[in-house]
Amino acid sequence: MAMRDTLDFLLYGWLQSESLNQRERFADHSRETFDAVLDTCERIAREKFAPVNRLLDTQEPHFDGERVHLPQATREALDAYVESGMLSAAQDYENGGMQLPCTVEMAANAFFSKACIALGGYAMLTNGNANLLMAHGTPRQREVFAKAEFEGRWFGTMCLSEPQAGSSLSDVATRAEPDGADSENDPLGPRYRLRGHKMWISAGEHELRENIVHLVLAKIPGPDGKPVPGVRGISLFIVPKWLVDAEGQLTGERNDVVLAGLNHKLGYRGTTNCLLNFGEGRHQPGGQGGAIGYRVGAPGEGLKAMFHMMNEARIGVGLGATMLGYAGYEASLAYARQRPQGRPLTATGKDAASPQRPIIEHADVKRMLLAQKSYVEGALALELFCARLVDEQHTAEAEAAGRARLLLEVLIPIAKSWPSEWCLEANSLAIQVLGGYGYTRDFPVEQHWRDNRLNMIHEGTHGIQALDLLGRKVVMEGGAALMALARRINETISAAGQVPGLAEAANQLAQALAQVGAATKAAWATGEPEAALANATPYLQAFGHTVLAWIWLDVVLALAPDDTRDFAQGKRAAQAYFFAYELPRIAAWLAVVQRREALCREMQDAWF
Amino acid sequence: MAMRDTLDFLLYGWLQSESLNQRERFADHSRETFDAVLDTCERIAREKFAPVNRLLDTQEPHFDGERVHLPQATREALDAYVESGMLSAAQDYENGGMQLPCTVEMAANAFFSKACIALGGYAMLTNGNANLLMAHGTPRQREVFAKAEFEGRWFGTMCLSEPQAGSSLSDVATRAEPDGADSENDPLGPRYRLRGHKMWISAGEHELRENIVHLVLAKIPGPDGKPVPGVRGISLFIVPKWLVDAEGQLTGERNDVVLAGLNHKLGYRGTTNCLLNFGEGRHQPGGQGGAIGYRVGAPGEGLKAMFHMMNEARIGVGLGATMLGYAGYEASLAYARQRPQGRPLTATGKDAASPQRPIIEHADVKRMLLAQKSYVEGALALELFCARLVDEQHTAEAEAAGRARLLLEVLIPIAKSWPSEWCLEANSLAIQVLGGYGYTRDFPVEQHWRDNRLNMIHEGTHGIQALDLLGRKVVMEGGAALMALARRINETISAAGQVPGLAEAANQLAQALAQVGAATKAAWATGEPEAALANATPYLQAFGHTVLAWIWLDVVLALAPDDTRDFAQGKRAAQAYFFAYELPRIAAWLAVVQRREALCREMQDAWF
Repeated sequence: MAMRDTLDFLLYGWLQSESLNQRERFADHSRETFDAVLDTCERIAREKFAPVNRLLDTQEPHFDGERVHLPQATREALDAYVESGMLSAAQDYENGGMQLPCTVEMAANAFFSKACIALGGYAMLTNGNANLLMAHGTPRQREVFAKAEFEGRWFGTMCLSEPQAGSSLSDVATRAEPDGADSENDPLGPRYRLRGHKMWISAGEHELRENIVHLVLAKIPGPDGKPVPGVRGISLFIVPKWLVDAEGQLTGERNDVVLAGLNHKLGYRGTTNCLLNFGEGRHQPGGQGGAIGYRVGAPGEGLKAMFHMMNEARIGVGLGATMLGYAGYEASLAYARQRPQGRPLTATGKDAASPQRPIIEHADVKRMLLAQKSYVEGALALELFCARLVDEQHTAEAEAAGRARLLLEVLIPIAKSWPSEWCLEANSLAIQVLGGYGYTRDFPVEQHWRDNRLNMIHEGTHGIQALDLLGRKVVMEGGAALMALARRINETISAAGQVPGLAEAANQLAQALAQVGAATKAAWATGEPEAALANATPYLQAFGHTVLAWIWLDVVLALAPDDTRDFAQGKRAAQAYFFAYELPRIAAWLAVVQRREALCREMQDAWF
Repeated sequence: MAMRDTLDFLLYGWLQSESLNQRERFADHSRETFDAVLDTCERIAREKFAPVNRLLDTQEPHFDGERVHLPQATREALDAYVESGMLSAAQDYENGGMQLPCTVEMAANAFFSKACIALGGYAMLTNGNANLLMAHGTPRQREVFAKAEFEGRWFGTMCLSEPQAGSSLSDVATRAEPDGADSENDPLGPRYRLRGHKMWISAGEHELRENIVHLVLAKIPGPDGKPVPGVRGISLFIVPKWLVDAEGQLTGERNDVVLAGLNHKLGYRGTTNCLLNFGEGRHQPGGQGGAIGYRVGAPGEGLKAMFHMMNEARIGVGLGATMLGYAGYEASLAYARQRPQGRPLTATGKDAASPQRPIIEHADVKRMLLAQKSYVEGALALELFCARLVDEQHTAEAEAAGRARLLLEVLIPIAKSWPSEWCLEANSLAIQVLGGYGYTRDFPVEQHWRDNRLNMIHEGTHGIQALDLLGRKVVMEGGAALMALARRINETISAAGQVPGLAEAANQLAQALAQVGAATKAAWATGEPEAALANATPYLQAFGHTVLAWIWLDVVLALAPDDTRDFAQGKRAAQAYFFAYELPRIAAWLAVVQRREALCREMQDAWF
């Protein structure tokens, strides 16, 4: 079954994406225009991205002390991406965009992530960077920087982490000081000099485009000359690699941002990942050291602005993890169909003289493929559902938009974390299906597994997602987000209860939902964060599995009960697999949450 | 806590290994002699193996079409290993050995696996090869080949798999035909000419030693000129890379075994892994093509002979997986103790102005470390327990030896599979503790994870272990092995029931054991293998977790109840963690076994 069939079914059969054209913003669109975008992206991904995926892994970016060297294939593939117009696909017509719904934009980007996740990184960062400027930048910042990014003339980065501050952004130490007497009057925005180090900067240095637009979190010293502690002290700055004038023309002057070194990674090797030094004086823009940056938004509002785009960034990471899982699923399915090995078990034993059979006939291989299918197709459905919520939030009438916002709040930690964990597991199963061959670099599955291991780390680690979910999202606004989700899940349960063959699953999901609710309450029963949150990760896992079970049940509800095509049977089997093999896992995870198991938090360093 | 403390406790405090010297074979030994061996191995591993672990990963073996090139460090480290005498440590005094118990031999080898698993591969294969010849070879085969291997002058391989026959050895296609009229009269054994291809041959080609002793499975054609189908047709042959005379002197003549190519792997890169061509005529020993091989044992008994050493080989693989997990645990523990990031949660929130705290103070980091501790120390205990059973089998009086044999039968699939799965998970958790740094090649944890991924594949895949356990081991001899294990576990349950603080765990384990027993019975209720075995892998997982829970409970029983040292508290915490977070997982795995869930075996190819 080609992925496109599943994608089409999820978009049109399940999410009714065609109906989006009833919204004014999408009035010019139709299934035809959506399909045209999907066709184009599927083709470019197949023709330009997929063929270079291994090459970009093997020929890792190399820093000679002056310049970064990337394989030529990187530029060629990204040129094709830029030409597709996808960088600005969701933007307004007046800004050169095509007002594409987020749902379709994400679906289209899925092809690129599956073909070569490392290339997708450049695009995702540039798009996120420009979107942030559209939301928080001045008209001129939008015109100069965002526009060049949407057009793909410049690429963007997000500079948050520092060597000593990863998950703990409140400890950002990069300083920004006003750049002279006229600093407030720069047409590009209040001008500062930045000094500090930024770590893990993807796409932080390259020569793929004529400029790089760094978005940098830094602290402006207070009246006492010291940075304000905590996240309240953080502001946001545009720091271009090459300086530009008020019309966005390159002045030829190099800003004081210097590559200190490339990180050599386990995977995702085609995306340069850098330690950048800001303001060390290597370059002297305007005759002095210090990286020139233009403030975006008000002082102290930097993190808020950065987090404005967080939902879409986290859907993007979750989708990337999903598509790596999908790529492994496809590769191992193809292998299992053509690899002969062993013979079926029968009551009379095996006949060694009979020819070997394709391994897809073995129950355990089918189990490994079905597990992958349930993970990757379920995760894809979840990501598209969340993308649809983004569209709802932006274009539906107020009440529906508000409901979508609440659902997104509570689903985003799952959309980011669940595929990172389970589509990685899918990648491991793909290796296992291939056996020894899967362990070699002659097949793609080992690279998928290496690439995917990043996704539980970046864009907020698993542990951070868990704290966000149990510590913030399920308790926010008096539990409103959790209740909104429960209502939505109960709609599915009610509908499934009416369908022969799904009633038992509906009942199982209802029980799971009740268990999650009870555990949530029990976790917070004492009101002490350290007691509630000590088991936040098992809670995240149980919550995630419950959400995925709901998604699967909702997806199969979109099939006609009398639909017996292979496609429909496959979806039903994956749903049934998830309910039989996966959903029952939540009991073990929730048990420790429910009783506020104190073992881990009471563990002492000296006992290890 | 240094690993040595845990190892000493397991060997002496738990397994009472000193008492082995009451057996005649080990009468000269004592804790002092055991400790001397451990000290030596710990030192060589630290000084010679650990420093080259990354180098051997980076400078992968390279084949120029004629010769294989390995880093010089490979030879130097292996020279030190050979000089330690460990290759023959368990052999009789009269064969140059030190009659070391298997328990101590395995414990000593653990240090090497932790320091550099890829180097350990050469030693393990050579030792296993020579042991097999001691059991099944003629006196001269032992004197010529095994002796040279025990002395480390030659290294050995095991040539089982072929490109078209991995798990399915009955499909071995390599042929062996008698080599001329005098073929039965060769002093080195019945002489044959072998022709075929062998895949995944670790240590299959190198110039580390003056010769390589291949042990090769091949089929002797029957009277009709065709190989006998199935495993009954398989015989075993010694195929030296360089031919030797009856006294074991190299004749200078090259045998017709040729490296066809190296496999480029995800990990374990320091061990060459090869496709070997036998008998293609590249070399012409005795004036004609065909690889000369000397039969070991009777025709058709090849697989039986090969499997004779299987228990120790599988303990070795499980121990290797365990030690990779241990290495990651140590690295992530050290990192967590020194890496400042974030602040503890308190009821009043966090004080951003206070200094950051080491991440080991966060509950979720402690959870990840405690999970690793419970996996790797538990697995180490299991492997040593199994090694002790090997000693029992060989040196105890008949009844105890018989009991040990039965326990080994049923524990070996767990000893091989459980660490392969869960110490790999430990490696993933180690990466997670290090965050972005863990994803770089500047830290060792990503290599551990890559290296360890092999262990679920080689020496019998996870699926094969599962079939062995549920299809053979738990039903053999009328269920005698399973009953022997249940009796042993019940001894632990009874003892723990008397200890304050362990009674609840004893009860939990008793329930788990009952559930495993019930699921075993239910799986076989219809007597149909295809129904019983469709969920063999979830059964293996549940069985494994139950065994590990028992091992942990048994281990903490060896602590004095009033022992409140950090060491003892740590062991208790790991046991408690395993019972709180891990053992409850078995319910989900067993549910599908219990009801003979048919979903996977009924899944159809076309539905994927």
